[in-house]
Amino acid sequence: MTPRGYTGPLSPDGRASLVPPPPWHYSGDFMIAEYRTDPEAVKALLPAELEPAEDPGAVAAIFADWQSCSADGRELVDPIQAQYREFFIVVGAKFGGRPVSRCVYIWVDKDFAMYRGWIQGFPKKLGSIHMTRTFDAGRAAPRIEAGARFGATCAANDRQIARMTLTLEHVSETGPTVNDPPMHNTRHFPAAAGSTPDVFELVRAGGTDRDATEVWEGTPELRLFDDTLEDLQAIAPHELLRGYRFSFGYTVDGVEVVAQHDRQEVR
Amino acid sequence: MTPRGYTGPLSPDGRASLVPPPPWHYSGDFMIAEYRTDPEAVKALLPAELEPAEDPGAVAAIFADWQSCSADGRELVDPIQAQYREFFIVVGAKFGGRPVSRCVYIWVDKDFAMYRGWIQGFPKKLGSIHMTRTFDAGRAAPRIEAGARFGATCAANDRQIARMTLTLEHVSETGPTVNDPPMHNTRHFPAAAGSTPDVFELVRAGGTDRDATEVWEGTPELRLFDDTLEDLQAIAPHELLRGYRFSFGYTVDGVEVVAQHDRQEVR
Amino acid sequence: MTPRGYTGPLSPDGRASLVPPPPWHYSGDFMIAEYRTDPEAVKALLPAELEPAEDPGAVAAIFADWQSCSADGRELVDPIQAQYREFFIVVGAKFGGRPVSRCVYIWVDKDFAMYRGWIQGFPKKLGSIHMTRTFDAGRAAPRIEAGARFGATCAANDRQIARMTLTLEHVSETGPTVNDPPMHNTRHFPAAAGSTPDVFELVRAGGTDRDATEVWEGTPELRLFDDTLEDLQAIAPHELLRGYRFSFGYTVDGVEVVAQHDRQEVR
Amino acid sequence: MTPRGYTGPLSPDGRASLVPPPPWHYSGDFMIAEYRTDPEAVKALLPAELEPAEDPGAVAAIFADWQSCSADGRELVDPIQAQYREFFIVVGAKFGGRPVSRCVYIWVDKDFAMYRGWIQGFPKKLGSIHMTRTFDAGRAAPRIEAGARFGATCAANDRQIARMTLTLEHVSETGPTVNDPPMHNTRHFPAAAGSTPDVFELVRAGGTDRDATEVWEGTPELRLFDDTLEDLQAIAPHELLRGYRFSFGYTVDGVEVVAQHDRQEVR
Repeated sequence: MTPRGYTGPLSPDGRASLVPPPPWHYSGDFMIAEYRTDPEAVKALLPAELEPAEDPGAVAAIFADWQSCSADGRELVDPIQAQYREFFIVVGAKFGGRPVSRCVYIWVDKDFAMYRGWIQGFPKKLGSIHMTRTFDAGRAAPRIEAGARFGATCAANDRQIARMTLTLEHVSETGPTVNDPPMHNTRHFPAAAGSTPDVFELVRAGGTDRDATEVWEGTPELRLFDDTLEDLQAIAPHELLRGYRFSFGYTVDGVEVVAQHDRQEVR
Repeated sequence: MTPRGYTGPLSPDGRASLVPPPPWHYSGDFMIAEYRTDPEAVKALLPAELEPAEDPGAVAAIFADWQSCSADGRELVDPIQAQYREFFIVVGAKFGGRPVSRCVYIWVDKDFAMYRGWIQGFPKKLGSIHMTRTFDAGRAAPRIEAGARFGATCAANDRQIARMTLTLEHVSETGPTVNDPPMHNTRHFPAAAGSTPDVFELVRAGGTDRDATEVWEGTPELRLFDDTLEDLQAIAPHELLRGYRFSFGYTVDGVEVVAQHDRQEVR
Repeated sequence: MTPRGYTGPLSPDGRASLVPPPPWHYSGDFMIAEYRTDPEAVKALLPAELEPAEDPGAVAAIFADWQSCSADGRELVDPIQAQYREFFIVVGAKFGGRPVSRCVYIWVDKDFAMYRGWIQGFPKKLGSIHMTRTFDAGRAAPRIEAGARFGATCAANDRQIARMTLTLEHVSETGPTVNDPPMHNTRHFPAAAGSTPDVFELVRAGGTDRDATEVWEGTPELRLFDDTLEDLQAIAPHELLRGYRFSFGYTVDGVEVVAQHDRQEVR
Repeated sequence: MTPRGYTGPLSPDGRASLVPPPPWHYSGDFMIAEYRTDPEAVKALLPAELEPAEDPGAVAAIFADWQSCSADGRELVDPIQAQYREFFIVVGAKFGGRPVSRCVYIWVDKDFAMYRGWIQGFPKKLGSIHMTRTFDAGRAAPRIEAGARFGATCAANDRQIARMTLTLEHVSETGPTVNDPPMHNTRHFPAAAGSTPDVFELVRAGGTDRDATEVWEGTPELRLFDDTLEDLQAIAPHELLRGYRFSFGYTVDGVEVVAQHDRQEVR
């Protein structure tokens, strides 16, 4: 009998695995600011298999405050294993002529969520993320109503990444649009040696049991900072569009491989 | 013109102060487990001015997940300045013949909340605190209903302090009782030299604009760990009573000095 | 031109990559406690390709306090990108009849080191690690001399993992032995869907430009805690052997694949 | 018998105290960048009792990487209780006609060091501080020699505070000068209610058993960031002077009160 696990560390009963096997259930609160940036900068972040979107400079900056758990929900009573927050930047594209979306940068504050992200094609780094919450009592929390103000920040490696505020105006008829089409990310795992990856594939994310509250929209402010390890200024906002706030949940059981990338091109 | 501030660091406009001036508004979610421990151990934690409670071994272990802000609410859109979590242990006592409560140990995860606590008589240390949340969508969050399970943990200095779980049963008719009477804590600030403190006074906490949701009660589990810097085993549970969950908010503008402790006795 | 990177996130110039391309240089301080545990528990952690060691219950618990950098050393002047600490547990084994070692569990405190570990076959989780340092001035640091005492702790998910102390006695003639043979770890990356991994291979670690100080040895104490997500009690110390302290540096440029594991067996 | 402690939390044997009683021993590594800024901005940070220095715009930005311990040294084998890092900004002044120095802002990464700082008149906030180290082996660490480069960063509340680099040139004949005269800080503890502090006194720091290595000097770079909660731009560098690196240790047993500040002025 050899040691087992959905991921390492492998162990006799598999329980030591950093990431438990899918399905994974998710519940979260979202703050989104949509904006337009330089379309060429977005194009420079797309792999060869994806074409620019109809609105090629459209971007969504997304904060999410999550709980997630395994099928048996055991993490929910040890919340350090369930809770995490993330900030990610999503652009639009086309694949096979149809609209898709793609996560180009993402920061998260827990290890299990980071590695689970890599498995699904989210290139997660660790960051520190904060996002205003609503509470049901007291004067230190906005309620979900017109005029309510929410804020969020992300930093990584002690460098500021993003700051967003959102003033709610009304229930949205459309909801956010940039991140609406199916996400097409890249799973990438380097080889033991050399610069040609062992895994390098375009995957479509899905999910079942989607559940969402009413979406509120309003006026966002967004700053992407200039002293980051990534070139965020290339995709900084030229024109801010609308902001959105809502709660969302779903269940994920893997992603679907839709293409193999050219492993020589990434070198 | 000299530099100003409600606390240091002092600065020309006072804005650098670690803690902004009161009033402070609070909104939070609470999980409480009440239990009985050795009455002598509780008595050994009371200052001379307080007498044992009617039920002298009754203790409340309390997790709180907070947002707080100044009068103008500016921290709410930069949530790293507003959010914090804490775990504290409250015992009962009497002062002048009337029931009071007292916070004997407390851990919190932000600096402003730590020093604001010392100002009010809460002897706060830094810790890492997690507490299950409810969300309005998805399968990774309990709702406020019978059978829902919540959990919470606290660690400090990489030592485990406490783990609690709570299974909700029904709306409570009584709510929690141990921490209900006015809290009588000790403000303590050492002298520049020597072991006789400069500030050493018994204070009564108050608060206005109290606001709370319905209180749910249920069956708690609680473990206080044995490898801590404080002697938590002395006040570990002998008999678990009921657990409670609710949201609460209020506004604080200082505390009231009700007695000066003997400054020689603490040495 | 498609986006590039040794790992994701892919970007036009490759600079956003979580892990920079090898070679990687390392400098670190080490504290090691060797001990014997149940040989069957060690055997249960070995993959089919590895046979038990001569001394099949021998284990090394290792704390390391590192700086690492890319070929151009740029991380060294932004030390949050260079510094990390880790705790790992190494067992002995044989491969092809020759002694090898294997890292069965490991915790680290930075994202780049975590993912770089997975690439090399170290199944890293995030943890919080502390280790006594020596300084060249003052009374708050042991020097490298007989009687000097060092300590170290590791926690993860706010659960205590390990605590070690070491009292130095004399320069060691042998140095540590369990982790001396070449390390044979498992690279593992799950598939997009299902439980059969895409990458599942036994790799031999190497490294060049090895550089070390004198090794001091002494008497260790070691506790592995019992409330962990991994079954550390199975490999807890039955008999403590010797402890070691030294500084070490080397350069790594990938690992060598020596066998493919059976991808069905891990499910 | 009432509960005891040098600070709260008070407990039967006093061991729960956040800060142990003095004396405290310290060992640390230092990186300093001296510079000149607007003298008026420095003056605006001085209390009424202090006059401007001879060189009124001179400032020292100081990173320190510490271990500290109590008289019995027990924290040294549980290093999470001993290690901390800090960044602070020191200006010059005169008191009674003699040169003094004063810490106007300071960030530290541990609770015991934060509150111990307030007791001594250092207005500490929590921050995240990193500083390049030297190691005795490997290629991922500068040695103490001409051309060696060190770096350091500080962030707080996920806002960038400072970044420094230092290229060593030669052993210094003078050492740093701004922070050399005795430090005159302000101890400040608010009242239970209202804005007139209970403790508000000018104190002189001392220390015994001073121990230092050779001081190296070289060319510094320093950036103070502009999105901080404090007005650091007011005291940002106009002209960079020299940088210094050395190790230092001493022992502290309280500070000396040299004046009472006017408690009305701080309001």
